[in-house]
Amino acid sequence: MVTTKMQIPDLTDPALAQRLQHKLDHKTKPLGSLGRLEALALQIGLVLGTEMPVLEQPQLVVFAGDHGLAARGVSAYPSDVTWQMVENFLAGGAAVSVLARQHGLALTVVDCGVARDVAPRERLLVRKIAPGTADSSTGPAMSAAQCEQAIANGRAIVQALPGNALLLGEMGIGNTSAASLLLARLTGHELSECVGAGTGLDKAGIERKRKVLREVLAFHAQAVAPLEALAAFGGFEIATMAGAVLEAAAQRRVIVVDGFISSAAVLVAQRLAPAVTQRCVFSHRSGECGHALMLRHLGPTAQEPARALLDLGLRLGEGSGAALAWPLLVSACALLREMASFESAGVSGPA
Amino acid sequence: MVTTKMQIPDLTDPALAQRLQHKLDHKTKPLGSLGRLEALALQIGLVLGTEMPVLEQPQLVVFAGDHGLAARGVSAYPSDVTWQMVENFLAGGAAVSVLARQHGLALTVVDCGVARDVAPRERLLVRKIAPGTADSSTGPAMSAAQCEQAIANGRAIVQALPGNALLLGEMGIGNTSAASLLLARLTGHELSECVGAGTGLDKAGIERKRKVLREVLAFHAQAVAPLEALAAFGGFEIATMAGAVLEAAAQRRVIVVDGFISSAAVLVAQRLAPAVTQRCVFSHRSGECGHALMLRHLGPTAQEPARALLDLGLRLGEGSGAALAWPLLVSACALLREMASFESAGVSGPA
Repeated sequence: MVTTKMQIPDLTDPALAQRLQHKLDHKTKPLGSLGRLEALALQIGLVLGTEMPVLEQPQLVVFAGDHGLAARGVSAYPSDVTWQMVENFLAGGAAVSVLARQHGLALTVVDCGVARDVAPRERLLVRKIAPGTADSSTGPAMSAAQCEQAIANGRAIVQALPGNALLLGEMGIGNTSAASLLLARLTGHELSECVGAGTGLDKAGIERKRKVLREVLAFHAQAVAPLEALAAFGGFEIATMAGAVLEAAAQRRVIVVDGFISSAAVLVAQRLAPAVTQRCVFSHRSGECGHALMLRHLGPTAQEPARALLDLGLRLGEGSGAALAWPLLVSACALLREMASFESAGVSGPA
Repeated sequence: MVTTKMQIPDLTDPALAQRLQHKLDHKTKPLGSLGRLEALALQIGLVLGTEMPVLEQPQLVVFAGDHGLAARGVSAYPSDVTWQMVENFLAGGAAVSVLARQHGLALTVVDCGVARDVAPRERLLVRKIAPGTADSSTGPAMSAAQCEQAIANGRAIVQALPGNALLLGEMGIGNTSAASLLLARLTGHELSECVGAGTGLDKAGIERKRKVLREVLAFHAQAVAPLEALAAFGGFEIATMAGAVLEAAAQRRVIVVDGFISSAAVLVAQRLAPAVTQRCVFSHRSGECGHALMLRHLGPTAQEPARALLDLGLRLGEGSGAALAWPLLVSACALLREMASFESAGVSGPA
C-alpha cells in the first residue's frame, strides 16, 4: 500500500528547542513554575517551527461510522445512535457542538461509513466507504482496498481544511471494541486489560464484550501488520482518522487527540510513521479502561509514555476532551509570546 | 471579633440538586460520561441557585503583600520581587496578565501590604495595612486589629466588584512560609509535611526554611484559633483574601481557588464559616509540597477531600491556575444550558 511508505520527518531541531527553552526560562516566573504548560509550549513551538507560535483556524473534525460487530451486543446503545448523534452534532446540541462554539473551533462532521444516509448539510462531509463495517467476528471489518480508501479520504480532508491545528473527534456505536482490539493486537497487551465499559456496560456486559472480542482477536490471528489489523477490526471512522493524523503530521499541524478511540487511530498512524506522536497533544486521560495503557505507547519517543493534560473521568468521545483541553494549548502559546522576561520587566532573579 | 461571627448558610437544596442531576442525566451522552464536569456543573448550579447558570463578569483579584519573615531567608527571591511583580501584573507582562486577557477576566491588583509604595494605576487598589508584615519569628506578623482590618478590606473589595465569580490570585515573597504555618497549625499536620520549595529552593534551602518555620511555629504555640494563627503568621494578602472569600461566599459567588497560598486563605475562612468551601472550585493541585495535604481539608463536607480540576505541576501562584481552569467552569455551565436532551434530539437511549 502507498500509505505504508509515508515518511514523517523527525521534529528534532536542537537549536530551536534551546531557544524556546531559554525563552521559557527567562520569563517572569520561577524556573519551571508553569509546569507542564512549559513542555506544551516547547512542543507546539517545535511543531510549528517558531518561537512565536500562534494556533490558527483550529479544525475539530468528528469522524463517524458504524460497526458490524455492534450486532453482537458489544455496546450498551443501538447502532441507530450513530446517525442520531451525527444529526445532533450538526444541529448544535451535542457536547462537542457546545464546546466547539465556546472555543471558536470550526466543527466538521465526516460520514465515514454511517449505516444510515444523512441528508447533506453544511459542515457535513460524506466520505462513506460503506454503510457500516462488516461484522469482524465472521470476517474482516473492511477490505484492504476500503481501508486504503478511508486513509486516503482522511488525508484529503485535512488537505482541504485551513489552519495549523487539528482536533480529533469520533462517533460510532461499537468503536471502543475496535479500539480495544487494535490496542491488544498492536501492543501485545492482554485483551482483558484493553476492554472497558464503553458507553456504560455493566459488569456482565463487559464480560460478554470481552468474550466476543476474544473470539474476534483469535479469528484474525494473522492480522498483525498495522493496516491488516485496522482492516480486520475497523472501523471506517478510525481508518479515516488515521489518514487525517498522517496528513496533519506531514503538514506539521498540531494534533489534539481526544480519548480512547482517537488514540487508537494515532496508534495505527504511529506504527506507520513513528514521528507522528511528536505532533500529538493528548488532551485527556479517558475514564475508559485501556486508555491509560494505550497512552504508554504513544509518547514522543519509544522510551517515554504520553502524558495527557486533563484527567477528569471523561468517557464521551466526540472530541469533547480535545475541545475542553484546547484553551490550555492557546494559553501555552500566549504565555510564550506575551509574557515579559525578567530583563524586560525589571524583575530581580533569585537572590 | 465581628468577623468570627459570620454566618454562611449551607447550600443544601435537595430539590434543586435533584433537578440539576436529572437534567444532566438526560443530556445526549452516556450517563456520567462527562465525568467531573458534571459534578462541577451541579456545584455551580447550586451556588448560583439555578438550572441555567451563567458566569458573569468574572473578577480575578491578585492580593499582594510582603512578609517580614522573608528577611530570614525563607525564599529563593528577594522581597523586592513583590512590588516588581505588581508592576508586571499592571503592565500586562505576567503570566496572570496574559491568561486574564485570554479569558476575558477582569484583573484587579490589591496592595494589601507591599513593602514599597506602588504608584496609583487603573486596576490597582491600595488597601495597604502596613509596608509588609512584621517578622513572625520575633512576634506576631500583624496585630489583631490589623488582621481584622485586612479581612474587612477583603470583604469591601468584593462588595464593590460586579459579577458572580471571584478568582483568587496572590503575590508575596515569603508567603508559602505563612501558608505552611497556617496549614500546620490549623490542621495539626507535621510541619515538615507542610513545607516545600516555594519559588524554587534547593534541598538545603528547604531544610533551612523548615528550621526557621519550626521556630516560628513554636514561638506562637498559643495562636491556635484561626484568626490568632492568621495574625501570628500573616500575611496581609492572605488575611485580605480570607475576607474576600467570606464575602464572596456570603453573596453566593463562585470562588475559584488558585494554589497553595489562596487555599490557605480558604482554610482560614473555612474555620470561621465551614460552608464557604461549598462555593469553592479548586482549580489545580499545585506542585508545591503541602497543597495536596491542604486539599484534603477543604472538601465540601468534612468527610470529603477537595478535588482539584487540573494537575499540571503548576507552582506559580498569581491566580495563574485559577485562570487556566476557568474555561472548564464556563464549559460546565454551557453544557448544562445548551446540550440537547435525548428527548429533544430524538436520540435513542441504551438498548
